[in-house]
Amino acid sequence: MSASSMEELVSLCKRRGFIFQGSEIYGGLQGFYDYGPLGVELKNNIKAAWWRSNVYERDDMEGLDASIIMHRQVLRHSGHEATFSDPMVDNKKTNKRYRLDHLVKDQKDAVQAQVAEQMGESTDNFPALVAALVRQPARASAALIAAGVRDPFSGEVGDWTEPKPFNMMFKTTIGPTADEDSYGYLRPETAQGIFTNFKNVVDSTSRRLPFGIAQIGKAFRNEITPRNFIFRVRELEQMEIEFFCVPGTDEEWHEHWLERRLSWWEAQGVPRSRIQILDVPKEDLAHYSKRTYDLMYDYPTLGHEEIEGIANRTDYDLGSHTKAQAELGLVASVEENLDSIAKLTIPHPETNKPVVPFVIEPSAGVDRALLAVLSEAFTKETLENGSERIVLKLKPHLAPIKVAVIPLARNREEITSVARAIKADLQRLGLGRVLYEDSGNIGKAYRRHDEVGTPYCVTVDFDTIGQSAEGSDGGLKDTVTVRDRDTLAQERVKISELADWIRSRLA
Amino acid sequence: MSASSMEELVSLCKRRGFIFQGSEIYGGLQGFYDYGPLGVELKNNIKAAWWRSNVYERDDMEGLDASIIMHRQVLRHSGHEATFSDPMVDNKKTNKRYRLDHLVKDQKDAVQAQVAEQMGESTDNFPALVAALVRQPARASAALIAAGVRDPFSGEVGDWTEPKPFNMMFKTTIGPTADEDSYGYLRPETAQGIFTNFKNVVDSTSRRLPFGIAQIGKAFRNEITPRNFIFRVRELEQMEIEFFCVPGTDEEWHEHWLERRLSWWEAQGVPRSRIQILDVPKEDLAHYSKRTYDLMYDYPTLGHEEIEGIANRTDYDLGSHTKAQAELGLVASVEENLDSIAKLTIPHPETNKPVVPFVIEPSAGVDRALLAVLSEAFTKETLENGSERIVLKLKPHLAPIKVAVIPLARNREEITSVARAIKADLQRLGLGRVLYEDSGNIGKAYRRHDEVGTPYCVTVDFDTIGQSAEGSDGGLKDTVTVRDRDTLAQERVKISELADWIRSRLA
Repeated sequence: MSASSMEELVSLCKRRGFIFQGSEIYGGLQGFYDYGPLGVELKNNIKAAWWRSNVYERDDMEGLDASIIMHRQVLRHSGHEATFSDPMVDNKKTNKRYRLDHLVKDQKDAVQAQVAEQMGESTDNFPALVAALVRQPARASAALIAAGVRDPFSGEVGDWTEPKPFNMMFKTTIGPTADEDSYGYLRPETAQGIFTNFKNVVDSTSRRLPFGIAQIGKAFRNEITPRNFIFRVRELEQMEIEFFCVPGTDEEWHEHWLERRLSWWEAQGVPRSRIQILDVPKEDLAHYSKRTYDLMYDYPTLGHEEIEGIANRTDYDLGSHTKAQAELGLVASVEENLDSIAKLTIPHPETNKPVVPFVIEPSAGVDRALLAVLSEAFTKETLENGSERIVLKLKPHLAPIKVAVIPLARNREEITSVARAIKADLQRLGLGRVLYEDSGNIGKAYRRHDEVGTPYCVTVDFDTIGQSAEGSDGGLKDTVTVRDRDTLAQERVKISELADWIRSRLA
Repeated sequence: MSASSMEELVSLCKRRGFIFQGSEIYGGLQGFYDYGPLGVELKNNIKAAWWRSNVYERDDMEGLDASIIMHRQVLRHSGHEATFSDPMVDNKKTNKRYRLDHLVKDQKDAVQAQVAEQMGESTDNFPALVAALVRQPARASAALIAAGVRDPFSGEVGDWTEPKPFNMMFKTTIGPTADEDSYGYLRPETAQGIFTNFKNVVDSTSRRLPFGIAQIGKAFRNEITPRNFIFRVRELEQMEIEFFCVPGTDEEWHEHWLERRLSWWEAQGVPRSRIQILDVPKEDLAHYSKRTYDLMYDYPTLGHEEIEGIANRTDYDLGSHTKAQAELGLVASVEENLDSIAKLTIPHPETNKPVVPFVIEPSAGVDRALLAVLSEAFTKETLENGSERIVLKLKPHLAPIKVAVIPLARNREEITSVARAIKADLQRLGLGRVLYEDSGNIGKAYRRHDEVGTPYCVTVDFDTIGQSAEGSDGGLKDTVTVRDRDTLAQERVKISELADWIRSRLA
């Protein structure tokens, strides 16, 4: 089962401390979110699973953690200064500004159809319609007005300007002076830090082709209309690989990575059946891309949206950032670079001649991954007694809390001391967070831990300390009750065997 | 032993892929650094050790991961807009700008003495001298000129302006409009995200006093003169705890955290004997602080500098960010806040009446921690044969690579397949990165792994596959050589017992 609506997820995330609106006590900041006590664990677990699969379990990968603020030359030569923009239109009546494609998409079908008709296009091919609007700004302005496109803010038909590009990079002044040259950008993708460090990594590790560099970190995009909870935000986190290979082997590696990434998603509880593979049509490809697979996950409410892109970027990026471009026989068409001080080549493994490798880039969003993982895990069940429960059926390695240890009486030292000792003992297994849980009654604790996906609850009761209310013979002494999140089965386990019992199920 | 100079560390970091200059191929960006393949592992290991100690191993802590870009109201009410600044002076001759205290400190002793004399102060109390310069700007300008303070850029005596405050926060425009109100700040400390989420965390976890919130993340400070490698940078990473307690118990908790943090540093290989505890004099305390301990680590070349601050911040922060300040009986003197929409109180554990808790804040820098850990681990040894080696005696849990598995012949499939299987097997232990190492001869590999602190090297040779060159009887078949980083001892271990052998020493 999975979540049936985004609202269900948003509500759970706020209630249980996964995700809060950023700067909320000052009215919130649109497009920024804070991860709460459970959100930070889930996010860290997803990142660790990705790092394990892509760095630790391979023999051809290095890790990296580059800075967020970068030299403007990096983002100039990457092409972002010129092209990392979205078309936007203003409504002269309300002075509100919208991203063109979002504005049109949000109109009623009939209005969308009229816009398309005005432009001589069809709503069946939405990207082509948007491209036509951007290509002919004067005609676009007239078409939006004639079609009666409404302003989502006022609800009334707007007086729309011509579409203009809006660069989505955040800019900031660096150093105490305010002269023209003293600004940098917050990186819009982590990838550029990998390309600019290509030579540093090769020199310090002696890597030969093929090999990759992996990085996890924040990226920033000044979205015109952030929306859909953590799906489209201004501050996001990415997990990116740039895999460098000999030109000619790139198509094979592209297929390798598609397969490998799909099986990773499966291992996180996001099955292939819920992901459509979009082989991006030639006419929609970025100019540097030879081929791109977009993995489109079926999000609740949103429908199929990109959760990861796997692009064959040819030699465009290293070719754009290298010096001495002319002598390198680049395949990609790149802008001239007179600023770089490094030659970004590596010996060809057979000929030993310097070559600019091709790049396969699997690029996934941490926030979008978290949303998909939560959505897949979200389950509403009707129990035997007719009551309903919400349970997050997270894969154990992703669960924010691995085990909750619950003392049945929070004021009985004989019980709480045993519970605390068990908590410390299980914590030492190194599997992730173990919680000493004394914040409510046992029923409430179970419900809470079902909702946050805790695989096991361990309860320390009077039997454990040999003081059964029923006066039993003490056969249950030094045992605890372990409750399974998914089956609801409760089992009595000896304390001395508990660590092994848990490890064998969670590690 | 430890590093004798910063240069030694910088050189090792670059050579072995720990740390590179940010945006290096475009000439570098001052105050920004990129962590390479080994740096990212060491950094992640330090962060994980901190999180384990402060979140997992306690029963009174929650984690958080708030956004970097924050609403300007957050940084206004925190006091940063008004006071997070450094005094700077310009040299009218060169148009270069310097941080006042750094400029004076960099002069020759005689020049410093003359500046002090002009101001009627002494160089023995440097903070008082700087305070005097800031308090009397006109007199300061004259004093710097009269004393012959030289511009480090030109080497000549400067024509110095009056000191002026320079706010160190990075600012950026948010959203597509460019009106006055649409900017935010990159957080200068992670702490503010904790205070603004105080209520969210309490509501979603049912925490009662005392408890803390822990966070690790990037912070940004537009330093006028970044320097000393990763010690003073513009993009840094912090590990901060805000521990909320009942007013009156704050002094006890302050001592608890001092003790706890010192023992954490010890466990990371940074002994108490190398840290001076500075009980910050009353007159040097920030206005909101009741008492602050600065932990001053003895860095090579730099001498004693702050590695962590542990402050008693009273009820200043929650008091500054709460609404309805007047009715809360705050102890700290705070600015009026008419913007906050939340009352930041929690029931007193005894009276149940709403109370604004006091805060103890242990705040450490990840980059400074990494530098201290590296410095302590750095060892130069003369071996029995008279040769010298550099070895990083890192605690095993911090080592970037736990085990290197080395095939003695990289083109013999019988050997490489065994080495790869051992690598995969040891990787599954979940202790961190295990490297399949086939990039050079065995001697070079040992030297490399000494320098990066790999605790064990495992070598697969001809004996392992029963093909000893000496024609031995195969008693060494299915065994490997394990070399110990610190003792250099080599031991023959059965492959079938290797995982347990390694686990018992590293876990």
